[in-house]
Amino acid sequence: MIENKFPGKDISESDLKDKFPLCAKKNINHFSKFEVAGVEFGGKTIPVMAGPNMVESEELILDVAKNVKKIGAHFLRGGAFKPLTFPYRSEKFNETREKGIEWLKIAKEEFKIPIITEVMEEKYINLVSSVADILQIGSRNMQNYPFLTACAKTQKPIMLKRHYGSSLRDWLGAAEYILYEGNKKVILCERGVTVPHTHRSTSRYSIDLQVVPAAKEVTHLPIVVDPSHATFWRSWVSPMSLAAVASGADGIMLEVHPDPTNSAVDPLQPIDYEHFKNLMKKMNQISTTVYKRKILND
Amino acid sequence: MIENKFPGKDISESDLKDKFPLCAKKNINHFSKFEVAGVEFGGKTIPVMAGPNMVESEELILDVAKNVKKIGAHFLRGGAFKPLTFPYRSEKFNETREKGIEWLKIAKEEFKIPIITEVMEEKYINLVSSVADILQIGSRNMQNYPFLTACAKTQKPIMLKRHYGSSLRDWLGAAEYILYEGNKKVILCERGVTVPHTHRSTSRYSIDLQVVPAAKEVTHLPIVVDPSHATFWRSWVSPMSLAAVASGADGIMLEVHPDPTNSAVDPLQPIDYEHFKNLMKKMNQISTTVYKRKILND
Amino acid sequence: MIENKFPGKDISESDLKDKFPLCAKKNINHFSKFEVAGVEFGGKTIPVMAGPNMVESEELILDVAKNVKKIGAHFLRGGAFKPLTFPYRSEKFNETREKGIEWLKIAKEEFKIPIITEVMEEKYINLVSSVADILQIGSRNMQNYPFLTACAKTQKPIMLKRHYGSSLRDWLGAAEYILYEGNKKVILCERGVTVPHTHRSTSRYSIDLQVVPAAKEVTHLPIVVDPSHATFWRSWVSPMSLAAVASGADGIMLEVHPDPTNSAVDPLQPIDYEHFKNLMKKMNQISTTVYKRKILND
Amino acid sequence: MIENKFPGKDISESDLKDKFPLCAKKNINHFSKFEVAGVEFGGKTIPVMAGPNMVESEELILDVAKNVKKIGAHFLRGGAFKPLTFPYRSEKFNETREKGIEWLKIAKEEFKIPIITEVMEEKYINLVSSVADILQIGSRNMQNYPFLTACAKTQKPIMLKRHYGSSLRDWLGAAEYILYEGNKKVILCERGVTVPHTHRSTSRYSIDLQVVPAAKEVTHLPIVVDPSHATFWRSWVSPMSLAAVASGADGIMLEVHPDPTNSAVDPLQPIDYEHFKNLMKKMNQISTTVYKRKILND
Repeated sequence: MIENKFPGKDISESDLKDKFPLCAKKNINHFSKFEVAGVEFGGKTIPVMAGPNMVESEELILDVAKNVKKIGAHFLRGGAFKPLTFPYRSEKFNETREKGIEWLKIAKEEFKIPIITEVMEEKYINLVSSVADILQIGSRNMQNYPFLTACAKTQKPIMLKRHYGSSLRDWLGAAEYILYEGNKKVILCERGVTVPHTHRSTSRYSIDLQVVPAAKEVTHLPIVVDPSHATFWRSWVSPMSLAAVASGADGIMLEVHPDPTNSAVDPLQPIDYEHFKNLMKKMNQISTTVYKRKILND
Repeated sequence: MIENKFPGKDISESDLKDKFPLCAKKNINHFSKFEVAGVEFGGKTIPVMAGPNMVESEELILDVAKNVKKIGAHFLRGGAFKPLTFPYRSEKFNETREKGIEWLKIAKEEFKIPIITEVMEEKYINLVSSVADILQIGSRNMQNYPFLTACAKTQKPIMLKRHYGSSLRDWLGAAEYILYEGNKKVILCERGVTVPHTHRSTSRYSIDLQVVPAAKEVTHLPIVVDPSHATFWRSWVSPMSLAAVASGADGIMLEVHPDPTNSAVDPLQPIDYEHFKNLMKKMNQISTTVYKRKILND
Repeated sequence: MIENKFPGKDISESDLKDKFPLCAKKNINHFSKFEVAGVEFGGKTIPVMAGPNMVESEELILDVAKNVKKIGAHFLRGGAFKPLTFPYRSEKFNETREKGIEWLKIAKEEFKIPIITEVMEEKYINLVSSVADILQIGSRNMQNYPFLTACAKTQKPIMLKRHYGSSLRDWLGAAEYILYEGNKKVILCERGVTVPHTHRSTSRYSIDLQVVPAAKEVTHLPIVVDPSHATFWRSWVSPMSLAAVASGADGIMLEVHPDPTNSAVDPLQPIDYEHFKNLMKKMNQISTTVYKRKILND
Repeated sequence: MIENKFPGKDISESDLKDKFPLCAKKNINHFSKFEVAGVEFGGKTIPVMAGPNMVESEELILDVAKNVKKIGAHFLRGGAFKPLTFPYRSEKFNETREKGIEWLKIAKEEFKIPIITEVMEEKYINLVSSVADILQIGSRNMQNYPFLTACAKTQKPIMLKRHYGSSLRDWLGAAEYILYEGNKKVILCERGVTVPHTHRSTSRYSIDLQVVPAAKEVTHLPIVVDPSHATFWRSWVSPMSLAAVASGADGIMLEVHPDPTNSAVDPLQPIDYEHFKNLMKKMNQISTTVYKRKILND
């Protein structure tokens, strides 16, 4: 009465061969290593991407760039284009779009820090690529296949965020679309999934750290964790960042803002410079003692 | 220690006013009614959309159009463009794209049956709109906001499938993007969500029928249920279709194929003509006795 | 790198033989039929169990017994012993325990209606059995195996509620413990599961109706659905009850209270007599036309 | 139309006062500290509980006791009584019950290592208490309130495992039942929850590490993490154990077996002595550098 012909959401040996052969490890020690703007992914460094949720203003992004660079971040993050769940936005809570991209360029130039920023639409790929060292594809676009293909064709490094309702299998299927275009610099990013057992109404997602060893068992792609967005709650960011490094993550993405409670978006989740500095030191302690991988220089 | 300022995924009174005022009911009896190609949604009819998963060939789609029309379907469904989880496809399992759209046109012309079919990319909106009476937006594009806006601007009726990991709140936020463009013919479609308690590995999703009364409590938009895709298992399609009608759904979408086990895609889920005919009769019995709404004519 | 030796939560052919052979169907048309207090389960009737969440007082339970019997309920339900999530209880919100059992006896005697009520502890099995025609085992005790065994040994009919976080496989494993003691009168009851995509904070659970056809594919045991407890919201009870009957459920359990908003427990979910009467009529229409099974007599 | 009177599964300020006042922190720095058999919980040590899933034989448990003690474990774990999902058991896969308790006593005596072991039934509380320094209450009994109360009355330290489908709120409600009896030595244990986005069919649960900071925000009780049972997969145990320590867990529970692939139960998850030794060293590095808490002595 039962036929298990269609394996559903779990990963089988034949998936590795037929569904995502380019993502799949060739042997147990196969892990991709590649450089982006002089920073190595998958190697001896665990890159940290830090910055505000949104590129609110030129002043803000310059201040953040200067400070996170000094503290040790490898990339400046910040959204100029950003999906919003509802079509209405206040003056404060808004995308800065073309202006935001311009400000990121100024920050990049002035502080010599590479940029990761989200691209949301095919027609802006060129614009966003003019500043981004890594194109970020958001959770909601994870299975927008024509868009994945269009981004892949730029041959820019791409960070693919996991959809909050997606299995590892579906995620690797999406990554395969990028690799399929000959683009090998693909970084996975876990940013929280929906779970039935929420801890509080302010916590929208739960970080799935088990996906880190699970991914590393089947794919050679580096995997980054973004605890800010998932936890949605400042005081949980540090413990979950430390846990992410300890779980074997290949990078960390964080929301850092000089004045978190006045952040234009999600003011409960960013950490300030002091908090970030302390966290960097502790993450570095874990990564160096346990994995012999550096976060901070010297 | 606890601040519940950010309500997370549940719906509050202020959401109705600020986040999706166009979706929200104005009063308890407010339900949208509108016609598409002579078929009323939200009124005295419960439209049924039937057809193959994929428009595999001209021959197939003509055969299905003739038969489902005769049995009582109000719309012919079938995908010419279709998101596939992995970039590889066999000769059999493939999109027919422009040709598929052409075949749908022939079927529409010959059997006078309106068409619902998926559109996946902005650049194909015009092409798909040339045959579709309803543009279907798939689960994976539910929160692709620029694309929702582009589709909305056609002023074509739109069926918005719920993402399999999405709350009702996020779904209504996405619908609001369409209404915001002045497009009032929006139909919601529940097609199964991921749950932690799966029944078997072949069942990828679980139909969430509780969302039907939940949606009707807050929004005036009609809501359709698609049990084929959710159950992924032929013998569960009838019970879940009957349950969907009984739960108050405003329409049903079904995969019907003359030779289900040889369907190009997901051969475990389509039902054949005979099965469809029996199901239509039973669904009609439920809808007429309980809701005074017709599925079959006379 | 992948070994799928341990099938996890899905049901395999070998599970049917080795894990729950007594639950498993012997052939495709194998469904248990048995009588409890003159009411047939799994046969031509779809029994309805109605009554208050808690046996609040003698007066209440007599009034409900009289009314639900008149309207057509086959069993009176009501909890004298009841698990409460926290150890504190107000005077109103409390178990009536031994007194409650006494009042159920009076109701049973006076109105000739059989009783289903929950048993929570081994030491009260005898007491509860002195009035109950069916012993109800609650969600939280579903995998309390020594307790299942102790209840099974009474040879009383048992209704086993599904844990809200349990797979069908685990549920059948629990049922097998009861059958293993030679007790064949086992009724499964779906009462809502936790899902990640909640509709509102007042909705604690989601009914999983897909489990009805899923269960009927592998087990011969009858399966009942309890929509009151799952939806937690009065206005969703009718649509979900109708959907449950349409999905093929073998019975329905409902909270009915003469004055729902003053119910001692969960006042948002019970329905009143008038509501119950209308619902019974509609459920009967569905069951007779679609399944040739009666809910109401005459 | 929306009334959010009943807060569902999230934790509110009033829950802290009315639902679990004994669990709730009195101020932001309030954390319980207590000793069990000379080992401090909630203080400067992070106790590790190691041993086999099942007390298979006297020989096995003595060998494990000797070795895990030498490597630095603070407690010997091992089940003599154990819930099994199905009533059938092979000769190999079976509980050793009274004999197992006897063997634990010998191991305790001989190697001076305190014991944590599961109790499943009220009638065995005395027997299990005769050897256990900590009574372990399993996931499936988390909401078996009369049993919680009976265990609490022994005034023995109790480790309460979270049900795999339970919210933090329900878990604290269960803990409150124990504290309510005047028993203050309560330890929470996260052991994996069901999630909709599984990584593979062999992975039955996902560790929810976000619950560690979430719990510490509202309760003073120490919280332990058990990665073996959750991951069900040997190679994920180390990364998730390290992540658990980094997340701020107050203790770690691990399955350690001299010959993992021949373990009587769940042979894919235990680690061997060498693996355990390396893991202890790395966990100790994290806990000392980040939290100034010791795992290993000297």
